[in-house]
Amino acid sequence: MNLPRTGIAVDVHAFGPEGTPLWVAGLEWPGERGLAGHSDGDVVAHAAADALFSASGTGDLGSNFGVDRPEMQGASGLHLLAEAARIVRAAGFEIGNVAVQLIGERPRFAPRRAEAETALSAAAGAPVTVSATTSDHLGFPGRGEGLAAVATALVVAVGAGGA
Amino acid sequence: MNLPRTGIAVDVHAFGPEGTPLWVAGLEWPGERGLAGHSDGDVVAHAAADALFSASGTGDLGSNFGVDRPEMQGASGLHLLAEAARIVRAAGFEIGNVAVQLIGERPRFAPRRAEAETALSAAAGAPVTVSATTSDHLGFPGRGEGLAAVATALVVAVGAGGA
Amino acid sequence: MNLPRTGIAVDVHAFGPEGTPLWVAGLEWPGERGLAGHSDGDVVAHAAADALFSASGTGDLGSNFGVDRPEMQGASGLHLLAEAARIVRAAGFEIGNVAVQLIGERPRFAPRRAEAETALSAAAGAPVTVSATTSDHLGFPGRGEGLAAVATALVVAVGAGGA
Repeated sequence: MNLPRTGIAVDVHAFGPEGTPLWVAGLEWPGERGLAGHSDGDVVAHAAADALFSASGTGDLGSNFGVDRPEMQGASGLHLLAEAARIVRAAGFEIGNVAVQLIGERPRFAPRRAEAETALSAAAGAPVTVSATTSDHLGFPGRGEGLAAVATALVVAVGAGGA
Repeated sequence: MNLPRTGIAVDVHAFGPEGTPLWVAGLEWPGERGLAGHSDGDVVAHAAADALFSASGTGDLGSNFGVDRPEMQGASGLHLLAEAARIVRAAGFEIGNVAVQLIGERPRFAPRRAEAETALSAAAGAPVTVSATTSDHLGFPGRGEGLAAVATALVVAVGAGGA
Repeated sequence: MNLPRTGIAVDVHAFGPEGTPLWVAGLEWPGERGLAGHSDGDVVAHAAADALFSASGTGDLGSNFGVDRPEMQGASGLHLLAEAARIVRAAGFEIGNVAVQLIGERPRFAPRRAEAETALSAAAGAPVTVSATTSDHLGFPGRGEGLAAVATALVVAVGAGGA
């Protein structure tokens, strides 16, 4: 078996104007203030996608979904994650897993963890786990200015030298 | 062999009132101001435990040690880490390693690294390595408002399909 | 095969005085304001090196390149990364990969990604991938106070028990 490769990503979005819907981890969160961004601002899905690019050396969110592909600018987080997984597999990698942590004071994530993990795992075609934490009222997440997510992914090159 | 899985976690605690003892990386640091929290606020041990949950998809610190298990609220970081390792193994995973980085201006970590790694590795029953950095006086750790830790863990499912 | 080990690192540097040259990811960025530091302040190369120490349990940047080795204080990021890779291999590990993400509003990284990855991979003697993101104008990178990088690395112990 080839040695697997690990990747890492941080994603940050500021909260948008009052009335913006919140999409995080592939789910809509009714009654919560949403994030600004060309896309739905889903920091969890974006960090997951970027960690896959990082692990496989296929660039990043900007280089894959940026100005050259304007049709992706408004895409949902789940759609971006599915497309990232497709790109990474097309580059010759099997996806082992993706793990993401949401950092923010809200929304209260735990009651919908299973639902989120199911949606994200289906999009990626591989296990995606999501945890959540606050930053103890420190930093921009603690001041309620935005949300952050950190992610890691494990992939392995298939084919040449592999088992 | 099954493909291993990687996980990630950030933990943040604000400094507590003057006179609070500091517990970080399983050790007490005499003369240093401590962290606020229901538990001992040990960001290194907490990030290590949360990275294990992240890698194995067994929830997070809040879902495992939260309101349903009030007896864990005051537990030491080492106790939480040992209990996290037990939960992850009970879910069918072998623990490869955990790596944690402490981010803050104080305490000066290096002289006690070996001692900390020994205590944390004993609690987890697997190698736990700890590094430390400052944030060059930037952000909340740089302003001395609190400490942060980032962690990653590698686990592998044993049994079904494994070697 | 031994189970591989994962590591993690964050590196942060504040911007230096006007006129300081910027070195990031092993490259000089003409016309961009540089980072303060005893070394060239290359957060990407430093995070990559520190993630290798983290994965292999060989200490950190401070313990390896600190006061006992003053000749390293002014070293370039590429030189530190090459030396870190040498130390990690001498400790009995093969390096699988290193993945780094640059966090900041500037410089615009994508046009020079391939060049940076080539330089860093040559220094480490293993694949080093680099992605980049902004923090949506939040936190110290968003306020333009400095740059941050996060990195992960995967290594595996060779020899004893290995295949």
